[in-house]
Amino acid sequence: MKKMAFHLKSKCNLLFIMLICTLLMIPVCATAKTPKNIFLFIGDGMGFPQKTAAEQYSKSPLMIDTLPYQGVTTTPASNRFITGSAAAATAMACGKKTSIGRIAMDADMTPLVTIAEMAKERGMKVGIVSSVSIDHATPAAFYAHVPSRSQYYDIDIALAKSGFDYFAGGGLKDPANKKGNATNFEGDAMELILKNGYKVVRTRDEFNALSPEAGKVLAINGWLQDSGALPYDMDRTESDISLAEFTDKGIELLENDNGFFMMVEGGKIDWACHANDAAAAIKDTLAFDKAVEKAYAFYKKHPEDTLIIVTGDHECGGMSIGFAGTQYETYFDVLKHQKISFTQFDQTIIKSLKEKTETPAFDSLKSVITENFGLAFTGDEKNTLLLKPHEVAQLEAAFVKTMKGDTEGSNDPETYLLYGGYEPLTVSITHILNQKAGIAWTSYNHTGVPIATSAVGIGAESYQGAYDNTDIALKLMDIMGIKAAPVYAVN
Amino acid sequence: MKKMAFHLKSKCNLLFIMLICTLLMIPVCATAKTPKNIFLFIGDGMGFPQKTAAEQYSKSPLMIDTLPYQGVTTTPASNRFITGSAAAATAMACGKKTSIGRIAMDADMTPLVTIAEMAKERGMKVGIVSSVSIDHATPAAFYAHVPSRSQYYDIDIALAKSGFDYFAGGGLKDPANKKGNATNFEGDAMELILKNGYKVVRTRDEFNALSPEAGKVLAINGWLQDSGALPYDMDRTESDISLAEFTDKGIELLENDNGFFMMVEGGKIDWACHANDAAAAIKDTLAFDKAVEKAYAFYKKHPEDTLIIVTGDHECGGMSIGFAGTQYETYFDVLKHQKISFTQFDQTIIKSLKEKTETPAFDSLKSVITENFGLAFTGDEKNTLLLKPHEVAQLEAAFVKTMKGDTEGSNDPETYLLYGGYEPLTVSITHILNQKAGIAWTSYNHTGVPIATSAVGIGAESYQGAYDNTDIALKLMDIMGIKAAPVYAVN
Repeated sequence: MKKMAFHLKSKCNLLFIMLICTLLMIPVCATAKTPKNIFLFIGDGMGFPQKTAAEQYSKSPLMIDTLPYQGVTTTPASNRFITGSAAAATAMACGKKTSIGRIAMDADMTPLVTIAEMAKERGMKVGIVSSVSIDHATPAAFYAHVPSRSQYYDIDIALAKSGFDYFAGGGLKDPANKKGNATNFEGDAMELILKNGYKVVRTRDEFNALSPEAGKVLAINGWLQDSGALPYDMDRTESDISLAEFTDKGIELLENDNGFFMMVEGGKIDWACHANDAAAAIKDTLAFDKAVEKAYAFYKKHPEDTLIIVTGDHECGGMSIGFAGTQYETYFDVLKHQKISFTQFDQTIIKSLKEKTETPAFDSLKSVITENFGLAFTGDEKNTLLLKPHEVAQLEAAFVKTMKGDTEGSNDPETYLLYGGYEPLTVSITHILNQKAGIAWTSYNHTGVPIATSAVGIGAESYQGAYDNTDIALKLMDIMGIKAAPVYAVN
Repeated sequence: MKKMAFHLKSKCNLLFIMLICTLLMIPVCATAKTPKNIFLFIGDGMGFPQKTAAEQYSKSPLMIDTLPYQGVTTTPASNRFITGSAAAATAMACGKKTSIGRIAMDADMTPLVTIAEMAKERGMKVGIVSSVSIDHATPAAFYAHVPSRSQYYDIDIALAKSGFDYFAGGGLKDPANKKGNATNFEGDAMELILKNGYKVVRTRDEFNALSPEAGKVLAINGWLQDSGALPYDMDRTESDISLAEFTDKGIELLENDNGFFMMVEGGKIDWACHANDAAAAIKDTLAFDKAVEKAYAFYKKHPEDTLIIVTGDHECGGMSIGFAGTQYETYFDVLKHQKISFTQFDQTIIKSLKEKTETPAFDSLKSVITENFGLAFTGDEKNTLLLKPHEVAQLEAAFVKTMKGDTEGSNDPETYLLYGGYEPLTVSITHILNQKAGIAWTSYNHTGVPIATSAVGIGAESYQGAYDNTDIALKLMDIMGIKAAPVYAVN
C-alpha cells in the first residue's frame, strides 16, 4: 500500500508538476507570443478633440475608437513640454526622449536604432507610408538619423540606403540638395534610390499594377498639393491615391513568411489643425481611419499574427468641441458646406484674386465664400450659417489684409493672434465656420494635452492604461521579444 | 496492474478535477470579490487639460494619474452632445443616459435608483461630499430624484429623507423654499434634517470634534464663498475645512463592518473653468487630488477591501495647454503670481471700486492688478508678465465696461465672446495671465471632449479602456454584485 501510495504520489506529483508547468506556460506564452505583422498608425496632430470631431461629423464611431484596447499617452519632448513631430516620432520609434527637431537621435545627437530597423534586422519587411512628404519628420524618424528634421537631403539619402521595402505617399523634399545643407553630398538622392533597386512609381496606373514581384518600391502620388504632400482628403480627385489605398497596397507588397512592420502616418491632420481648418482636419482624420480599416481587415484574416497600434504624436491647434458663441450647442453639419481645404482655396481663389490688376471689392467675393464654405451674408435669421455683423466685419478686415499681402504686420503680436501667419481671409473664414459648428481653437501650433492610443491583436492589451510616448516603442520592443530599452546605433 | 492503473487514474482524475476547479475559481473569485469600501471621486469640469495644467503647475504627477488603472470616458447627454452636470452625474450614479437638467431621473422623468441608494440598501454607510453646495447637481444625483436640478428645495427635502450617513462640504441652496418652486412644501428642510436625526455642524471646532458616535452628520464649512460653496482652495483660510479634510472625516465616520460608499465632488474646478480662471482651476484640482490622497492612504491600509474610482463629468472651458501668442512655449510659473480667485477679486476689489462715489482712473488700479495677478505695466521687456500694448488696451476697455456695470451689452454676441457674462475686468485679467502661461480657452461652458477615469483596488481593472459615463455606474454595479442595469425606483 505504501509503495502504491508512493507510486501514486510520484505519478500524481509528475502530473501536478506538468499541470503547473502548463499553467505557468499560459502567461509566459501570452507575453512571449510575437505578432508576425505589425502596424503602427500615427495621426499627426490627432488628439482627443480631432477624433471626437470626426466621429460627431460622420455620425458613426471611428474604427480607431472601437479597437478593444484604449490608452492615454503623454507627449513631452526632453527640452520642451509641448513637443514637435520629430521628437515625438523619435520617442515612438526608438523609446527615448529627445529634444525638439531630432530625428532618431537623442538630445546629445547619438543615433538611436528605430523599431523599423529592428524589424528589418529580424528579417521582417518594412513599409513607411505618409500623407505628407515621405522625408517629413514622422516617417523620417523610422529610417534616418539626423540632428535636425530640416536636413531633408540627408534624410532622402538615408531613405535610399535604408533597405526598407515600401515607401509610399508624398514625395521627397530635397533629393538634389537645393537647400544646400547636405552633411555629405553624395549626388542626387532619387538617383541613389533608383540605383539601390527601388521601383519608383508616380501614377495611379503604375501604382495599381504594383505586385510583390516589384521588389522595393517608392510610390508617390501624382499630385503633390503642398510641400510634397498628398492633397487634403477633401481635395482628393479620383486619380489621387488615398492613404487607405497606400496602406492596402503596402499589405499586398509586404506580406511574407517573415512578417512585416508598417508605419502609416496621417500627416495632414496636423497641417489642417495648424491652419485651424476643422473640416480639412476631420476629413483627413476620417481618411486616416479608413487606412486603419484596411489594417483591421487584414487583422481579421490573421488575428493570431497581427498587432495594430494607432496613436497620435500630439494634439494640434488646441481644438475644442465647444465655443463661447455657441455655448452648449454643436452644429457639426455646417462643416459639410465647406467644399475645399484652406490650401486649395488659397491656391485657387486667393491666388487668382491677387493676380487681378485691380483690387476687387469685398462684395464681389461674397458669393465665392458662400459657394465654398456655406457662410451666408443674407437670408433667414434662423440659418446657422448666417454671418453676424461682427463676423462680416472680421472677414472684410481680413480681406483687406489678404489683398495687401501677408508680410504686413507679421511681427505684430495682435495680427499673429488673428491669422497665425496664414492667409488672413482664409483663416478668418475657417475660424468663423468652425465656430458656427461649435468648434474653436486656441493656437496655430501643437498643444501639451495627452493623446489617445488604441490597439488590437497580439500584445495589444499592454497598450491599455496611461503611459508616455516612449512606451509606444518600449512596449512594442517587449512584444517583439527585443530588450525593451532604447538601443544606440554602433557607428 | 490494470486495477492499479484505474485506481491511479481515478485518484489522479480527482486531483485533476480539483485542480481545474481551483483554477476556474481564480477568475470567478476575482470578479466576484466585492470591495467593502467604495470611493467615487468626481472632478466637475475636470478633463485632461485641467489635470495636465495642475501637474505642470505643481511640477509633480497627480495622485489621480498614478493610479494603476486609467481609462477614457465619453460624456454626451441623451439630448445634447455637450453634457451638463446633472445629466452626467445621473449617468454616473444610475447607469442611464438622461436629458439635460435631470437629477436621477431618465429623460421621461422616471426615477432611477442611484448607486448610493443601492449601497445603503445593502447595509453600507453612505457619504456625500462636495466643495459646492451639497444640493448641487452632482451630489444631488446620488440621493434626489427630480426633473430639474433647479428644484433645490425638493433636493434638500430628499437629502433630509435620504437616511445617508454623512453630508459634507458646502451648504443648502434653498431649504426654506424661497424660490417658491417646491413640488410639495413640507416645511423648512433644515428643520426636517435635524428632526431626522442629523447632527449639523458649521464650525471647524465642531467638525474636528465629530466622531463615529455622532450618528448621521451634515457638516457645512463656516465660510460659504459663493452660492453656498466652499471658498476656492486658493482663497481658503486656516479656519476653512479643505476637501481633503472633509474626505478624511468621512472615512473616520463611515468606516464600519458593512463598509461604505462615499462620493466626493471637486465642484469648483468647473466654476473656475467657466470663468476661465486657470490658477483657481489648477488649485482646486490639486485640492481634489489631495482628497484622493486621503482615500488612497485608506486603500493602502485596506487594499483587499477598497475600490477608488476618480473621474470627471465633462471638460469645461475648452482649456488648452498651448496658446497662439506663446506658440510652443509654456510658462506655468506665471500663474503663481495670482493671489486670489476671480470671485475673491470681484467680491473685494471690484466691489469696493463700484462703491466709490467717483469712478477711479484706470491708472490707479494698475498696482492692484500687479499685486494680485503679477501682470506688469512697466519694466523689463524680458519679463514674461509685462503687458503688451494691446493687452493694456484690452484691460482698459474691460475696466470701462466693469465700471459701467455688466448689464450693458450682455445681449451683444461680440461682448459675450469677450467676457462671457463675467466681470469684464476680472475675466480679461485671467485671460491675459493664462495666455502668458500658455493656457487658453475656447468657451465659458462645458465641452464635448472625452475625460479621464482612474481607479485602484478591488475591481479597478474594469475601468481601463474606453467607455461611456453610464459605464461608471454599470461597472460599479457589476463589481458590487448588483445586476448591472439601470434600476427604476418603485413609486
